Amino acid sequence: MSSPYCISLADVEAAQSSLHGLIHLTPILTCSSLDELAGHRLFFKCELFQKTGSFKVRGALNAVRSLVHAAQGDREQPKAVVTHSSGNHGQALAFAAKVEGIPAYVVVPRTAPVCKKAAICSYGARLILCEPTDESRVEVAARTVQEKEGVMVHPNQDPAVIAGQGTIALEVLQQVPQVNALVVPVGGGGMVAGIAVAVKALRPDIRVYAAEPCNADDCYRSKVTGELTPNRHPPDTIADSVKTSIGPNTWPIIKDLVDDVLTVTEAEIQQATQLVWERMKLLIEPTAGVGVAAVLSEQFCSVSQEVKNVCIVLCGGNVDLGTLAWLSPPGKEANGN
Amino acid sequence: MSSPYCISLADVEAAQSSLHGLIHLTPILTCSSLDELAGHRLFFKCELFQKTGSFKVRGALNAVRSLVHAAQGDREQPKAVVTHSSGNHGQALAFAAKVEGIPAYVVVPRTAPVCKKAAICSYGARLILCEPTDESRVEVAARTVQEKEGVMVHPNQDPAVIAGQGTIALEVLQQVPQVNALVVPVGGGGMVAGIAVAVKALRPDIRVYAAEPCNADDCYRSKVTGELTPNRHPPDTIADSVKTSIGPNTWPIIKDLVDDVLTVTEAEIQQATQLVWERMKLLIEPTAGVGVAAVLSEQFCSVSQEVKNVCIVLCGGNVDLGTLAWLSPPGKEANGN
Repeated sequence: MSSPYCISLADVEAAQSSLHGLIHLTPILTCSSLDELAGHRLFFKCELFQKTGSFKVRGALNAVRSLVHAAQGDREQPKAVVTHSSGNHGQALAFAAKVEGIPAYVVVPRTAPVCKKAAICSYGARLILCEPTDESRVEVAARTVQEKEGVMVHPNQDPAVIAGQGTIALEVLQQVPQVNALVVPVGGGGMVAGIAVAVKALRPDIRVYAAEPCNADDCYRSKVTGELTPNRHPPDTIADSVKTSIGPNTWPIIKDLVDDVLTVTEAEIQQATQLVWERMKLLIEPTAGVGVAAVLSEQFCSVSQEVKNVCIVLCGGNVDLGTLAWLSPPGKEANGN
Repeated sequence: MSSPYCISLADVEAAQSSLHGLIHLTPILTCSSLDELAGHRLFFKCELFQKTGSFKVRGALNAVRSLVHAAQGDREQPKAVVTHSSGNHGQALAFAAKVEGIPAYVVVPRTAPVCKKAAICSYGARLILCEPTDESRVEVAARTVQEKEGVMVHPNQDPAVIAGQGTIALEVLQQVPQVNALVVPVGGGGMVAGIAVAVKALRPDIRVYAAEPCNADDCYRSKVTGELTPNRHPPDTIADSVKTSIGPNTWPIIKDLVDDVLTVTEAEIQQATQLVWERMKLLIEPTAGVGVAAVLSEQFCSVSQEVKNVCIVLCGGNVDLGTLAWLSPPGKEANGN
C-alpha cells in the first residue's frame, strides 16, 4: 500500500517484527483515583519501564537494525552511528548500537549534566564533546560522521525512527482494544506521527491527540496556521524531552492524522507529574506528565463523552536523581552505619 | 489442621477469599541491570501499587471484614475501628473501614506531617490528635475505643492482620512458581510471619528471609539470642515503616519459620532505594529499599547458589513528596504560565 507520508503501516509492522524480543512489551497500568479526577477511564502505557528508560529505544533500534541488516548489494554496512542528543535518544542509540555490535558516537555539549554523560557511556557509546551552541553541535556531528564513516540517526525525522515509535500503537491496540483515544506528548513528533499512522490505518475511529507545553507550542501553532511553524526561541519548560520542534517528515502526518493538539502550562505539568508520583508510584519524567496534564485539563473535560477510554503514553522516566533532595532533607544528615 | 501459631495456612487462604476483588493483584516486575548487580534472578512484588500505596491494606481489610462479618450470635458488630498509626496502617485501616462502611478513628501525634494526616482523612477516617509520646498515644487510643465502642486493630500483632499480609505469599507462589527465596522487610513482623506460615506450609523448600535496618535490628537480635528482644530505644532509620519491634504473636512464627535475618546499613538502604528509582522507575519508600539492599549485600552473595530466583516484596511507595525538591531545583523557580 503506498502512503503519502514518509512511512506507512507496513513500516510500523516491519519495525515490530524487527524489535521483537529485543525490547520490553511494556505494561498498561490503571489508577482509580486519577480516573475520578479525569472523568475518563485512563490506561497508562508504561514506556518509562522500556529498555533505557524511554520509548526512544524503539526508533533508535529500528533505525540501527535497518542500517545494519539492509546493508547488501550496493549499500555498505555503516562503520558507526552518530547523533547529537544528550537526552533519551542519545541513550537509546547507544543501547541500539551495542545490541547490533557497531560503535556509536554521541555528540554532547561539554556543559551537559554528568549523569546524562554517564548514562550514555554506560551503554558503551563514545562521547564527543562540543560547545553548548547549535552551530558547534551540528558541525561536530557532521565532522564525526565523516571521520568515523558513520551514519547520522536523527532523533525524530528519520523514517525508521518514526516507524519504530509507531510500534507503541500496535501494542496499545492489542492491550486495550476498547481504547477511544490516545494522548501522546509531542516534541519532534516522531512518536505521535508513528502512532497516528498505525492507529488511523487500523482503527480510524480512535482519536489521536498530541500534548504539548504552552512554552513549546510549535505543533499547536503549526496546526492552527496550517504551516510548519517551529519554536522561534529555545523553549523554557521542565518537560525537557519536548523542547524540539516538529520537522519536515513528521509535520505532514501530524497535519493530516492528529485530531487535535492540547497545550498545558508549566504549573499543570508539574502538578500532573507529582500526581503520578504520588498516586501511581511511577517515577515519570515531566515530559510524561505533559500527557497526563492534558487529560486533566478543562479543555479535555469538554471532549465528547464518546471518548471514554483514554490511553496516555508515559513516555519516559529519566529524571536526574541528583536534583532529588528527599533522602537527605535539609538540616538532617543521612546517618550511615 | 491445628497450628502452634496464632494463624495457619487456612487463615491465609480464608483471607485471600475475603479480600478477593477488593484489592489489587499486584504485578511482578523484573530488571536485568539489578539481576546483574545481585547475581541472582530477581522478581519484584509490587505492593507499592497496592490500594493505599502499601501491602498494609491486606491485613487491615481482612481484620475489619472479620470483625464485621463474623458478628453474629453472641458477638456484636463493632461500632468503629481504632488504631494509633500515622503511617501505612493508619491509611489502610481508614480505607478498610470505608469499604465496610463503619467509622475509623486514627490516633495521630499532633506533630505528625500534614501529608500523612491528609492521606488518612482522604479515606474518610477521623483523626484523634494526641501528644507525641507513647503514653499519650496508648491512653488516647484506649479512651477512643471506650468512647466510640470501637475495636482496636493492632498494626502487626492482630492474627487477622497477619493472615491478611500472608496473602502476598499465595500470589507470589502463583505468579513466580520457580521462586527459591522471598525477602521481606520486617518491622512488627506481620508481613514476614504471614508469608512464612503460607510458604512453609505449601512449599517448605522455599526460603524466607527477613530484612531489617541495622539501626532497628530487634528481629536479628531475637533470632540470635532465641529470645524476643525488642529495640531498646526508638530507632533512627530512614526506613520509617520498620521502626517497630516484632511482638508476641509474630515472634514464635519468625523464630521457627524464618530462615535468616539480613541486616543492612542506612547507606545501603539509601543506595538501594535510589537504585530502584533510577533503574526501575518505581517510587518505592525506603522501607522497600531494605529488602533490595539485603539482596545486594555481600552477606547475600554468599547465599547458596541453589537460591537462583529471589522475590523481593516492594512493600510500599508512600514517600513524602513534600521533601522532594526536584521540580524546583535551588535557584530556579518553576515558571508558571
